[in-house]
Amino acid sequence: MAPQLDSYFKTVDDLSDAFIERLRKAVAIPSISAEDDRRPDVIRMGKFLASELTALGAEVELRELGKQPHKEHLDLPPVVVARYGNDSKKRTILVYGHYDVQPAGIEDGWATEPFTLTVDDKGRMYGRGSTDDKGPVLGWLNSIEAHKKAGIDYPVNLLMCFEGMEEYGSEGLDDFIKEEAKKYFKDADAVCISDNYWLGTEKPCLTYGLRGCNYYSIEISGPGQDLHSGVFGGTAQEPMTDLVNVMNTLVNKDGKIQIKGIDELVAPLTDDEKALYGDIAFTMDNLYESLGSTTGIYPDKERTLMGRWRYPSLSLHGIEGAYSAPGAKTVIPAKVIGKFSIRTVPDMEIDAVNELVYKHVKDAFAAIGSKNKLNVFCQHAGKWWVASPKHWNFTAAGKAVEHVWGVKPDLTREGGSIPVTLTFEQATGKNVLLLPMGSSTDAAHSINEKLDKKNYIEGIKLLGAYLHYVAEEPITS
Amino acid sequence: MAPQLDSYFKTVDDLSDAFIERLRKAVAIPSISAEDDRRPDVIRMGKFLASELTALGAEVELRELGKQPHKEHLDLPPVVVARYGNDSKKRTILVYGHYDVQPAGIEDGWATEPFTLTVDDKGRMYGRGSTDDKGPVLGWLNSIEAHKKAGIDYPVNLLMCFEGMEEYGSEGLDDFIKEEAKKYFKDADAVCISDNYWLGTEKPCLTYGLRGCNYYSIEISGPGQDLHSGVFGGTAQEPMTDLVNVMNTLVNKDGKIQIKGIDELVAPLTDDEKALYGDIAFTMDNLYESLGSTTGIYPDKERTLMGRWRYPSLSLHGIEGAYSAPGAKTVIPAKVIGKFSIRTVPDMEIDAVNELVYKHVKDAFAAIGSKNKLNVFCQHAGKWWVASPKHWNFTAAGKAVEHVWGVKPDLTREGGSIPVTLTFEQATGKNVLLLPMGSSTDAAHSINEKLDKKNYIEGIKLLGAYLHYVAEEPITS
Ligand SMILES: [Zn+2]
Ligand SMILES: [Zn+2]
Ligand SMILES: [Zn+2]
Ligand SMILES: [Zn+2]
Repeated sequence: MAPQLDSYFKTVDDLSDAFIERLRKAVAIPSISAEDDRRPDVIRMGKFLASELTALGAEVELRELGKQPHKEHLDLPPVVVARYGNDSKKRTILVYGHYDVQPAGIEDGWATEPFTLTVDDKGRMYGRGSTDDKGPVLGWLNSIEAHKKAGIDYPVNLLMCFEGMEEYGSEGLDDFIKEEAKKYFKDADAVCISDNYWLGTEKPCLTYGLRGCNYYSIEISGPGQDLHSGVFGGTAQEPMTDLVNVMNTLVNKDGKIQIKGIDELVAPLTDDEKALYGDIAFTMDNLYESLGSTTGIYPDKERTLMGRWRYPSLSLHGIEGAYSAPGAKTVIPAKVIGKFSIRTVPDMEIDAVNELVYKHVKDAFAAIGSKNKLNVFCQHAGKWWVASPKHWNFTAAGKAVEHVWGVKPDLTREGGSIPVTLTFEQATGKNVLLLPMGSSTDAAHSINEKLDKKNYIEGIKLLGAYLHYVAEEPITS
Repeated sequence: MAPQLDSYFKTVDDLSDAFIERLRKAVAIPSISAEDDRRPDVIRMGKFLASELTALGAEVELRELGKQPHKEHLDLPPVVVARYGNDSKKRTILVYGHYDVQPAGIEDGWATEPFTLTVDDKGRMYGRGSTDDKGPVLGWLNSIEAHKKAGIDYPVNLLMCFEGMEEYGSEGLDDFIKEEAKKYFKDADAVCISDNYWLGTEKPCLTYGLRGCNYYSIEISGPGQDLHSGVFGGTAQEPMTDLVNVMNTLVNKDGKIQIKGIDELVAPLTDDEKALYGDIAFTMDNLYESLGSTTGIYPDKERTLMGRWRYPSLSLHGIEGAYSAPGAKTVIPAKVIGKFSIRTVPDMEIDAVNELVYKHVKDAFAAIGSKNKLNVFCQHAGKWWVASPKHWNFTAAGKAVEHVWGVKPDLTREGGSIPVTLTFEQATGKNVLLLPMGSSTDAAHSINEKLDKKNYIEGIKLLGAYLHYVAEEPITS
C-alpha cells in the first residue's frame, strides 16, 4: 500500500522559499575544488553543510583526508559524514553527494553572476552548483526539515557522505569509503546517489548502468629535439607521421573500433535488454539538439542509445607535443603523444582491453617500419558499472517517481562514468541507485548552470517519498 | 689577377678587439621584435646602427614603416638604409641584414646572460644575436672601418638595408623593398645577404637556393560544441577521426608525398646538378648529430642533401582544437584543424601545388563518407628561390672564400626559406647571393647562440674581399 505522503508534500511546498534560500546560501560559497585559492571556500562550504545538518538534529563529523597529493601545501577539504536516525528497526540508506563545484566566472560568458542564485520568470534557478550537486545534496537536508516540520517520523536511518573534491578527481575518497564501509557505513542497506540527470527534460529516470573508461597514450619519439621542417623535412622520419598512421587504425568514421578482439568482449544483447529501449523518452531530435548538428552515426533512437550506453566507443582526443596553437609553425615535433580512450561496457575487463590495445598499437607501429620509438600505456582506467534494476532499492524509487511525477521512470544507463558509484558498490556490497534530480538542459560544467525550481521542489518530495517506499519494500535481495 | 688584400686583412686583425667591442654593444641591446615591451630596444638598436654608420661616413636614413598590423599601438621599427660611396665608376652592391633578434632569457637554460657577449677560452662568443644577425650586419660596418683605417679605397658603392622585424615576419618590408627598388636601391648591380650558416663547421659555403613553403590547414567540424566522450562517444561522427584519416593520406614514413601530381611538378635531376653533391662537406654523422638521433630516411649523404634541398617534403605539424595538454581529458573536439606544410622546389608553382593539395584532401575526405564538414586552405605560401651560381656575384664570392679560407666554398642550397631573398631578386631583377658568416653549430634561435671569433674576424675579411673581387669581375650577365 502506498505511504501517506500528502502532508510531507504540502510541507515541502510551504517551505519551498526557505529551501530556495538554503540553496542560495550554498551557491554563494564558491567552493571550486580545482582552484587552489578557493580551497578555504570549499572548506567553508563543508562547514556550512555540517552546521545545517547539526541544526536539523543529525550527528555530524568532518573527516579530514590529509594533504592534497602533488600539492602538499593544500589540505584536502573534509568529508562531511552524518547520521540522521539510529533506529535498528528501520532500514538504513547511505546517500552520497558533493559540495564542491566546477570553476565559473562571469567572464566565461555567464548571463548572470555565477555565485548569485538568480531565478528567472520561468523558475530556472541559475548558479554554479545549483544542479551539480548542491541542489541534490540540500534535497536530503530539506527532506529532513520537512519531515520535522510536518511532524512525520523519518522513514529510514539516513547515512550521509558529502565530499568536497568530486570535480577534481575525488582525491582520497576511495580509500575513505573502503575504510568506512565496515565502520561508519556498516549499517547501510542500500546506497542512493543523486548526481546525474534525466535523459530529457520531461521524464524522470532511474539510472542503473555506467560505462567505464580506459584512457591511453601513444608516445612516438625520434629526434633529440624539435626540428625545423625547412632544415629537416625530407631527411628524417617524423614521429607525427607515424602517430597519425597508428591513430588512424583505431576506429572508423562510424565509431566502429578496429582493434581485434574488442567486439568479442562485449556482452551480447539479450531480447530482454533490447525491449527496454523502445519505451524510453528520447528522440533523434533530442540527440541533434544536444549535438548541435545532425552528425549522428545511427538513424534510430534504439541504436543511438545502445551506442551511448551498452556498446564500447573509442574517441581520439588529441595530440600532446605537436603544434596546437592558432596560426602556423613549421615545427617537426620530436615527440608526440596521441591520446584516446575507450568507453567500456560489460564484460570488458580492464586488463583484457589493455592487452588488446597494446598488441594492436604495437602491431600497427611495426607495420610502418619506422626507426622512431613507440611507447603505449594506459593512463588510467575505471570499470563500468551495472546494477540490477529489479532490486528493492530501484523498485522503491520507481514507485516514488510514479507517486510524485505521475509517470513510470525511464530505466537508463549513462555513457560516462561516475567512479564513486562502483566504489560504493564494491566497498559496501550493497545495491546502488542513481536517482537524478535535474534535467538534461541543466548545463552542469558549462556556463549558465541551472536547476529548475520544479525539479528542486518535486525532487525534495521524491527523495522523501523514495525513503518511505524503501521502508515498505519487502526485502528480496 | 687577385686584388691586394694583405693590408686590409692586417687592419681587420689589428681592430679585432674593437670589432668585438662593437658586437658586445649590439648584443647588449635586447632588440626582440616579437615582444611588445622590447620595441623601444629594437628602435634603440636601429638608432645605434645609424649612428655607427654616420660616424663611419655613410649617408643614413631611418625609414618608418608605420604601425604594426594587428597591434596598432606599436610603431614598427625603422628600416635603416644607408649608402657608403657614390662613385658611378664603381659597382654598387646592396646588402641586407636584420638588427632584431629572437627572444631569450637566462631562465630558458642559457649558460650565460644572453644579452652579455661572453667569450670563452675557445673563442666562442655567446650572446643572443651574435650570429643572427648582428655579427654579419656589423661585418659590413667593420669592413668600412678597416678600409678607412688602412687607407684603402672602398672597392664598391655599398647600399645597406637593415630591418628590425625579421624574426617577426618582416612586417612591412616587402612593400618597402618593392617601393625602393627603383629609388633608393636603383643603382644596385647585385645583392648580398649574410643571414644563413655554413653546412658544417669547417668549410665555408655560398648558398644559391632555398625551398619555398606552402602551409595548409584542414578544418573538419561537426558538432556545435565540444562534446563529452562519455555522453556522445559511439553516437556521433567525430571530426578528429576524420581528420586523422585525411592526414594519414598525405605522406608516408619515408617522407614520400602521397598527393598525386606533386612528383610531376619537380624539376628532374640533371647529371650536372647531381655531380655537385659528391664534394660537399657533409656526412651522415653530421645529420645524426643535428637530429640527435639516427632516424634519418636515407643512408647516404647525396640523397639526404637532395631530400633537404632539391626535393619537396611534407611535414605534419599538429592539430589545433584537439586536446594538447599533458594528462587526460575525455573531450570530443567539435572542430579540429590539422596543420601541414609542403616545402617546395623548382618547378612547383604555388597555385599548381594548392590545386593538387585541395583536390587530394577533398577526395580523401569524400572517401570517408562522413557527415562532418571539411574546409581546406593555404594559410600562406612563399616561393622557392634558386639563383645562378655562375653569376659574377657568386664567382667573386667564391674567389674571396678561397683567398680568405684557402678552400673552394661548397655550393649549397637550404631546405628552409628566407623570403626576403626572393623579394630582393624579384624587386631589383638582380642576382642575389647568400654569403654566410657563422657555422652550423651557432644555435641561432636556440639557447646559447654564439658566433666563433674566427668566423667573425675572418668573416669581416671575407665581406671586404668579396667586394674587391666584385670590383674586378668582368660583367657577364
Ligand atoms: Zn556532480
Ligand atoms: Zn560535476
Ligand atoms: Zn636571421
Ligand atoms: Zn633568425
